[in-house]
Amino acid sequence: MSGVVRTRIDRAERAVIDGLAGAGVATVHEAQDRRGLMGSHMRPIWPGARIAGSAVTISAPPGDNWMLHVAIEQVSAGDILVLAPTSPCEDGYFGDLLATSAAARGCLGLVIEAGCRDVAELREMGFPVWSKAVFAQGTVKETLGSVNVPVVCAGVAVDPGDVIVADDDGVCVVPRAEAAATLEAARARASKEEEKRRRLAAGELGLDMYDMRERLARKGLRYE
Amino acid sequence: MSGVVRTRIDRAERAVIDGLAGAGVATVHEAQDRRGLMGSHMRPIWPGARIAGSAVTISAPPGDNWMLHVAIEQVSAGDILVLAPTSPCEDGYFGDLLATSAAARGCLGLVIEAGCRDVAELREMGFPVWSKAVFAQGTVKETLGSVNVPVVCAGVAVDPGDVIVADDDGVCVVPRAEAAATLEAARARASKEEEKRRRLAAGELGLDMYDMRERLARKGLRYE
Amino acid sequence: MSGVVRTRIDRAERAVIDGLAGAGVATVHEAQDRRGLMGSHMRPIWPGARIAGSAVTISAPPGDNWMLHVAIEQVSAGDILVLAPTSPCEDGYFGDLLATSAAARGCLGLVIEAGCRDVAELREMGFPVWSKAVFAQGTVKETLGSVNVPVVCAGVAVDPGDVIVADDDGVCVVPRAEAAATLEAARARASKEEEKRRRLAAGELGLDMYDMRERLARKGLRYE
Amino acid sequence: MSGVVRTRIDRAERAVIDGLAGAGVATVHEAQDRRGLMGSHMRPIWPGARIAGSAVTISAPPGDNWMLHVAIEQVSAGDILVLAPTSPCEDGYFGDLLATSAAARGCLGLVIEAGCRDVAELREMGFPVWSKAVFAQGTVKETLGSVNVPVVCAGVAVDPGDVIVADDDGVCVVPRAEAAATLEAARARASKEEEKRRRLAAGELGLDMYDMRERLARKGLRYE
Amino acid sequence: MSGVVRTRIDRAERAVIDGLAGAGVATVHEAQDRRGLMGSHMRPIWPGARIAGSAVTISAPPGDNWMLHVAIEQVSAGDILVLAPTSPCEDGYFGDLLATSAAARGCLGLVIEAGCRDVAELREMGFPVWSKAVFAQGTVKETLGSVNVPVVCAGVAVDPGDVIVADDDGVCVVPRAEAAATLEAARARASKEEEKRRRLAAGELGLDMYDMRERLARKGLRYE
Amino acid sequence: MSGVVRTRIDRAERAVIDGLAGAGVATVHEAQDRRGLMGSHMRPIWPGARIAGSAVTISAPPGDNWMLHVAIEQVSAGDILVLAPTSPCEDGYFGDLLATSAAARGCLGLVIEAGCRDVAELREMGFPVWSKAVFAQGTVKETLGSVNVPVVCAGVAVDPGDVIVADDDGVCVVPRAEAAATLEAARARASKEEEKRRRLAAGELGLDMYDMRERLARKGLRYE
Repeated sequence: MSGVVRTRIDRAERAVIDGLAGAGVATVHEAQDRRGLMGSHMRPIWPGARIAGSAVTISAPPGDNWMLHVAIEQVSAGDILVLAPTSPCEDGYFGDLLATSAAARGCLGLVIEAGCRDVAELREMGFPVWSKAVFAQGTVKETLGSVNVPVVCAGVAVDPGDVIVADDDGVCVVPRAEAAATLEAARARASKEEEKRRRLAAGELGLDMYDMRERLARKGLRYE
Repeated sequence: MSGVVRTRIDRAERAVIDGLAGAGVATVHEAQDRRGLMGSHMRPIWPGARIAGSAVTISAPPGDNWMLHVAIEQVSAGDILVLAPTSPCEDGYFGDLLATSAAARGCLGLVIEAGCRDVAELREMGFPVWSKAVFAQGTVKETLGSVNVPVVCAGVAVDPGDVIVADDDGVCVVPRAEAAATLEAARARASKEEEKRRRLAAGELGLDMYDMRERLARKGLRYE
Repeated sequence: MSGVVRTRIDRAERAVIDGLAGAGVATVHEAQDRRGLMGSHMRPIWPGARIAGSAVTISAPPGDNWMLHVAIEQVSAGDILVLAPTSPCEDGYFGDLLATSAAARGCLGLVIEAGCRDVAELREMGFPVWSKAVFAQGTVKETLGSVNVPVVCAGVAVDPGDVIVADDDGVCVVPRAEAAATLEAARARASKEEEKRRRLAAGELGLDMYDMRERLARKGLRYE
Repeated sequence: MSGVVRTRIDRAERAVIDGLAGAGVATVHEAQDRRGLMGSHMRPIWPGARIAGSAVTISAPPGDNWMLHVAIEQVSAGDILVLAPTSPCEDGYFGDLLATSAAARGCLGLVIEAGCRDVAELREMGFPVWSKAVFAQGTVKETLGSVNVPVVCAGVAVDPGDVIVADDDGVCVVPRAEAAATLEAARARASKEEEKRRRLAAGELGLDMYDMRERLARKGLRYE
Repeated sequence: MSGVVRTRIDRAERAVIDGLAGAGVATVHEAQDRRGLMGSHMRPIWPGARIAGSAVTISAPPGDNWMLHVAIEQVSAGDILVLAPTSPCEDGYFGDLLATSAAARGCLGLVIEAGCRDVAELREMGFPVWSKAVFAQGTVKETLGSVNVPVVCAGVAVDPGDVIVADDDGVCVVPRAEAAATLEAARARASKEEEKRRRLAAGELGLDMYDMRERLARKGLRYE
Repeated sequence: MSGVVRTRIDRAERAVIDGLAGAGVATVHEAQDRRGLMGSHMRPIWPGARIAGSAVTISAPPGDNWMLHVAIEQVSAGDILVLAPTSPCEDGYFGDLLATSAAARGCLGLVIEAGCRDVAELREMGFPVWSKAVFAQGTVKETLGSVNVPVVCAGVAVDPGDVIVADDDGVCVVPRAEAAATLEAARARASKEEEKRRRLAAGELGLDMYDMRERLARKGLRYE
């Protein structure tokens, strides 16, 4: 089953993807019913990036980064590489040379449930990575994996072409077919939050704004 | 036993609390006989904050942030929210809306043995959080917990009104009744450290400054 | 076997050490056949430092930092302290006073498979530490360890005088006797990488630059 | 998207499922190209069970076991319950009462990426569970999840009706449509292993039996 | 604050304690409103023990087991030793000699948030231990701790004399003053469970027995 | 540096090795000054084995078990295989076929800082393994490692021919040259323990037997 590269994937519309980037991980996660969030061990290697793009997925053996080279050829501008190792691994699959190559293809970033290295250089390049570890451990190029096949990365099923949203809060996956609807829901949520933020900043309590007092009392909350 | 909100808590004097903030976590921890330090998994979501305040404690079910809304009403200016889940959890109980509300009440920060989200926004707001995880995972509002009851957070027993000191080194809890004495001990320690720092910077060795050589020799230390 | 301080250690040449610092952890690790890399749990307490120096090693009991005082006397300008506890520990063996003393001796930094505290102060001082934890927990001075004996730190055997290279990617150990050869290999690698980086930035693919296509096909890679 | 119960699922043939149980996790995992293996944190609560069955999947909120009651109604004889929480959790969703109910429906066991309790009683009942934790922590019944929807459990995507194989080595998932082919491959592998086992027991070396010496030499292996 | 031994502690009645042992951890935990459960990392070193006793608490420095000797003198028949280190530690504080001594005093077992050794011998002796680790690492006797002071062990506040219940499900703490009421609640719960178990074994569904269908429908559960 | 097999190693005398097996891990660890103990994550896959043998060491790439086949040829009767991966890995390098082959050469067991599979079969064979994980994940045979070179396994430096002692308490390494002296120290310790055990069983307190009371009082211990 491994050893396959799918050269054609469908992508969501760029405007939708950009809208999701603007919304950010927490809002997108809520907007799609709290699904799609990768595990909290997936951390950005430097703070402040917020991106969204279409997933070019990689299933790679532990400690073998060959498929990254294969995958970079499949990248179109605006894509994000998503690498899931076939068994737990924190080796440094990716560093500044691969980032240079990926960036030259228009790749926006990497999501990898393994390790990353050259993080000082990647920070200087402004190339964002969300990874499980920072680890310089080198890898080999011996065993095939696959590119653009369904993977499970950090607990989430990712299909090639799904929209990846990533920022300081982590990484969220939006199924391609739901991207437009999710953006709409995210915008609706964000516009409501604006009003809420204003009222809360003015001192109004969530207890009142969300009408919680009666339900709390019914559940039995006692003030002493 | 859950479902209780204590609306009146005793607090230490603000001057004492501010003194403890100035001393910082490491000094306060030493000044109170190395007690009160939360586990090292409690990390600031952004570097550089150093605060102290009175604990408004929250015991909350896993994945349920309802009690945060209840607790914010109990906050007075200068307080710090302390949330301990009733079982291990890293969901994102707290984000920028709750921070906006808490800040409007004068809350100085949050200590939570669970997750936090919207960390980019919280960093911009300057609202500090010490948490076990950064995780966007949403929570529900279904089950009661309690506010201002004794909790165990990150391995430390916290009573409402205890003084919380938090900085880049972590979080330390000072029992309210011992706050003034602890501050005094912290100041004594800090003033001694000033002199030590000067001598060490000048090249004097700790071996000599602390008169360690004889005791080391008696224990059997051999130089080869 | 504990309770020993070796007062004379051999060091690599400073020019070689400085060269290794310039090369950085990932390149040095590769240049010496992917050996010597400490575990990924060894993280810098602040980003951006890149140093190399000769190891002054410390074997210390858990929760006992006495030997740090002993070790600092053994530091020469350009050395790096390397502390391995004799059982797993994350207590805060090291803070700003010890850093002041170490810096006064010309110590460049600390590598410790345990905890560190006063990290805000250390950041301000520019004193770099790679540690397993940030933890203010105080330590005692009761039990002897040893200085300048072979240790295993974060999974790597370190002899006193070995070259320690540390940066944002972690910590790598170069056996003293191999330092010059490793530097040479690192420089050869770095100069090749310069050319590769230029070509990749221009859009050439690794698949072509490294002639991978034929071997991938032979292994059975299929494009669909 | 949550709040759905699919009442009809397709299952593999019982004879195929039983064959897979006989083959065991390691052989089945190899037979399907090393896919489908859940993470090593999924451990049996007592040793010695080896089962296979059709997955009745459960997506459940953290700390909320309501959907287990819903799922048990969907169990047919020979099924295995597979529960994935929507965020990381180790609460004790399942104990002897639920096991009694599940066993009465012919359920063969439970795979849960969370906690389990009453393990002494479950051991006495002979009801096997593979879980992330043994933890008595109680759960609530407040929030809907779903039954017989696709889930990701311990890093593996599971569709309802997929074949679950579980023994002391862990848990492996076989897509329903591939079950028969996987069994065939497993049997082929097992029959070859019998011969190999005999030869190895007689003292023949793998180096010779697998003809490895030449390839090792070509790769550069040196005997000293 | 350390260096204190309280020689008199109040204990619950033996009959109550024995009743709690009979009920077991999961039932007792539920009976007291789901409080008092230690973290799931506290595991028995051999399966099958189920005990309850009065806590003789120990606050001990990391890697220093001196206070265990002090504590054993404070043990009365039917007590359980509870050791919490003052910072995270997995050293082997306790082995067969200490177990021999403790058993000679009538001690029923040990709960330790650290390590234990000689586990084969302890299994043969039938002396049960719940610990964070099995680890032979030796400890020193240099620094005072305290005996029979309040501690936090594995996330739970324990006062001397509290009732400890421990079995294959873990460890639960019952405040002494609540022991009798908790036993009553546990018995009520257990007797109800007997009836439930019978009905579930006969094939009745929890959905019906607990009248869940209507509430599930109101929450929006859909069958497809 | 990898790709080397040392075909001749020195071993300790069998009588000494057998004596160390009899002493067990905890006693041997103490007898050699508390050195040589592997991390507590190295657990037996079944309880009750206690072995000692000469280390045949293996340095292997992550997820690649080729060198195990090479190493088995180097095994003499009474040896123990010790495998350290070159980066963290929990894949299942070893199962019943390799155990059959190793046992046929007289190998007593395996110590592996990675995964093991076929644990039910290994238990039936009586072949003991101490590993970091039980995990069925298959491995490849692509990249060379080395056999009988110095390795670091689970935090301990191991030279080929060192004596490995392993039982339910874990794994301890005794340098070959120190094996006889360590056995002598272990026997001295064990014979003293016999007397102590008798006295403690008779109710004598460690406080008295070890004359601790005065030193405790001098340190400031207070009885209240």
